[in-house]
Amino acid sequence: MRIDIWSDVVCPWCYIGKRRLEKALADFPHPVEVAWHSFQLDPGAPMVPTDTVATHLGRKYGGGEAAGRQMVERVEAAAAEEGMIWRHHESLRVNTLDAHRLIHLAEAEGGLALQGALKEALLDAYFAKAANIADHDVLRRLATGAGLDPARVDEVLASSEYGDAVWADQEQAAAYGANGVPFFVIDGRFAVSGAQPAALFAQALEQAWSAAHPVLQPVGGAADADACGPDGCAL
Amino acid sequence: MRIDIWSDVVCPWCYIGKRRLEKALADFPHPVEVAWHSFQLDPGAPMVPTDTVATHLGRKYGGGEAAGRQMVERVEAAAAEEGMIWRHHESLRVNTLDAHRLIHLAEAEGGLALQGALKEALLDAYFAKAANIADHDVLRRLATGAGLDPARVDEVLASSEYGDAVWADQEQAAAYGANGVPFFVIDGRFAVSGAQPAALFAQALEQAWSAAHPVLQPVGGAADADACGPDGCAL
Repeated sequence: MRIDIWSDVVCPWCYIGKRRLEKALADFPHPVEVAWHSFQLDPGAPMVPTDTVATHLGRKYGGGEAAGRQMVERVEAAAAEEGMIWRHHESLRVNTLDAHRLIHLAEAEGGLALQGALKEALLDAYFAKAANIADHDVLRRLATGAGLDPARVDEVLASSEYGDAVWADQEQAAAYGANGVPFFVIDGRFAVSGAQPAALFAQALEQAWSAAHPVLQPVGGAADADACGPDGCAL
Repeated sequence: MRIDIWSDVVCPWCYIGKRRLEKALADFPHPVEVAWHSFQLDPGAPMVPTDTVATHLGRKYGGGEAAGRQMVERVEAAAAEEGMIWRHHESLRVNTLDAHRLIHLAEAEGGLALQGALKEALLDAYFAKAANIADHDVLRRLATGAGLDPARVDEVLASSEYGDAVWADQEQAAAYGANGVPFFVIDGRFAVSGAQPAALFAQALEQAWSAAHPVLQPVGGAADADACGPDGCAL
């Protein structure tokens, strides 16, 4: 089985939803591949940050820094329920294009396992350590720490490589009708929208498993069918 | 799409069910392959016939020739409703092993199209013309008429070739829990038992088509999901 997940690296519900999914996967008895896809929530965010997320939210929705900080604290509380201690109140509003390009490089270099390692490292850096994940030094450290080739990381960061892959992922999400993230697609067939509870992910996994392993399903009643058997024909 | 059909060449409901399925297929807009599988209803029937079907039925179920003939006339009436004029009251009780072996040869030689042509020729010969389809001259004529290579037909008839394939088909039917025929399996997944009405075949075809061409199916409510979108995160 396979789960394709659209997600942004600065999206709090994406990280929380990842933990809830992982809880369901831990109890699921069959192997499942996870592939990460790019979804930029705020493509207009600056490459060089000027504001914290809290400041930006307070300005965008009104109420100033204090109001923005309250919003951040609510997702920090939800994260704590999943066992994560965040410093999201210190996180900066940054562009995620380069982070997403490296997530594509990771898959190309080392498959879904390497991609998964980098995705987790980026989320952890941004939410738990308030790192600036638009900064190339930070990105280089995280990517090579996850196992990517330093020379390739530098090449990609210095170019626009994988920008088209980021764009293609966004197009695919739009084709699926996904306006927000996280957005999960199991076996190209079952969609889960949002950071749903682990129990719902468990149900979706079971449903996809059953769909992929059908038992012969009778159509129509066999009782009054006209048929012939070893003891003769229905006449 | 593909339909696997277990059927005997001397089974009246198999021929009637074939016509009903064909009616549904004529209105079905997608291509469907049909594969025929062997199911011997009466493996103890003689290679050289001694009785008509009517006589045999009358002896087996009581009431003599007249009662047997009444049974035959009832399926002849059902066949007439599908546009077929039968002489089944003259049909002989015969063994179908050799006919089934040639049906397997047909597939090996010319694929499912040739197999389908021979299957129809055998059913027509037995039901509409009361031909003795255990007789090797009759079988040779029907098989070569359908397009099989005469030399291969003679080789197979003179040997036990494809006897194992006939047996394997019967085993597969038993594994599916099919005790009688006709028995239809669509895409290895949906089962139809007996000569069901054309409308039911149509429904089964639609169901199989939908199963093979899924649209993304939402799991759980998206309404109160915790997610982030272009306008911010649910906080």
